[in-house]
Amino acid sequence: MSSTRDIDALIEMMAKLPGLGPRSARRAVLHLIRKRGILLSPLADMMQTVAATARECLNCGNIGTADLCDICASEKRANGEICVVEDVADLWAMERSGVFKGRYHVLGGTLSALDAVGPHELRIPRLIDRVATENITEVILALNATIDGQTTAHYIADELGARVKKTSLAQGVPIGGELDYLDDGTITAALRARKAL
Amino acid sequence: MSSTRDIDALIEMMAKLPGLGPRSARRAVLHLIRKRGILLSPLADMMQTVAATARECLNCGNIGTADLCDICASEKRANGEICVVEDVADLWAMERSGVFKGRYHVLGGTLSALDAVGPHELRIPRLIDRVATENITEVILALNATIDGQTTAHYIADELGARVKKTSLAQGVPIGGELDYLDDGTITAALRARKAL
Repeated sequence: MSSTRDIDALIEMMAKLPGLGPRSARRAVLHLIRKRGILLSPLADMMQTVAATARECLNCGNIGTADLCDICASEKRANGEICVVEDVADLWAMERSGVFKGRYHVLGGTLSALDAVGPHELRIPRLIDRVATENITEVILALNATIDGQTTAHYIADELGARVKKTSLAQGVPIGGELDYLDDGTITAALRARKAL
Repeated sequence: MSSTRDIDALIEMMAKLPGLGPRSARRAVLHLIRKRGILLSPLADMMQTVAATARECLNCGNIGTADLCDICASEKRANGEICVVEDVADLWAMERSGVFKGRYHVLGGTLSALDAVGPHELRIPRLIDRVATENITEVILALNATIDGQTTAHYIADELGARVKKTSLAQGVPIGGELDYLDDGTITAALRARKAL
């Protein structure tokens, strides 16, 4: 490598980001260096700002820049619905759809016997607590349709008992999906949950 | 988006990097925020360092942290060979192979009538100058095997005239390449340049 140590170190750090490898990290760093005035310095500044201010919401586990995230801080979002997701990325995906008007609860993973993740490693006790204190009428279990996700959803549903309405996301054909490319499980689920026209 | 303004701004900046889109930028930023102590702050610091120190070598156009890059500064690399490449990324690729022991000259692009790129927009005059003053015995034109790359190579070869040996990279089957997947042009070139065993 002809570039000097700092540039190599920067490439190595970038290469560790998810979605980037050594080759794309090199491309990205070259691009940044070429436009260092308008791109590299502002990016570094913004990273420094975010590193200093980003934190997890004490209530729901979302990432924001205050002890309470924007959603937990907004009275408008207190509509009695709480959407339980595995991860902040899932919360952001739900928010992009713009259709859910309630609050969230980020578990921070799924129960996993193999990885020794129990309810106390996740934010499950806090969820039970919130359901009891925040006038919650419906808990939407929006966990991934994986075995671990569904196991976790069942565990939480059991823990919550009958004191609140519990729902999960519908399963079926994704919008724009072609039957030919769907797995058998999805087709089975879509057929079982078929609707009258 | 539930994240606050700074986080959104950071995602937007990351999404502009080559190889990253909005989705992978979100993943990367979430990853960075989760590990902000050990990842985000050091990365921001290193970007700041590189933004402050990175510059183009005044002699060859390589990117380094001094007015002369490591290669131009090293007497060992003055072996009379100069390898002409389009871009710093090409120089880095050549260096990774470790086989070339001479110096480089980065053009900064190719001649292009369509984009109004003439010899003076590239580092061609500086190349002619270097060939005259640096005891160069061979100019290796390692430009991309594209129409613009080859046009530029021919132009430079003409400009240099007979005063120096001019070579180009061999064309043929790449190592590990399967004939079935190669284009006709490559197969034609490989067949024409066939070697006796």
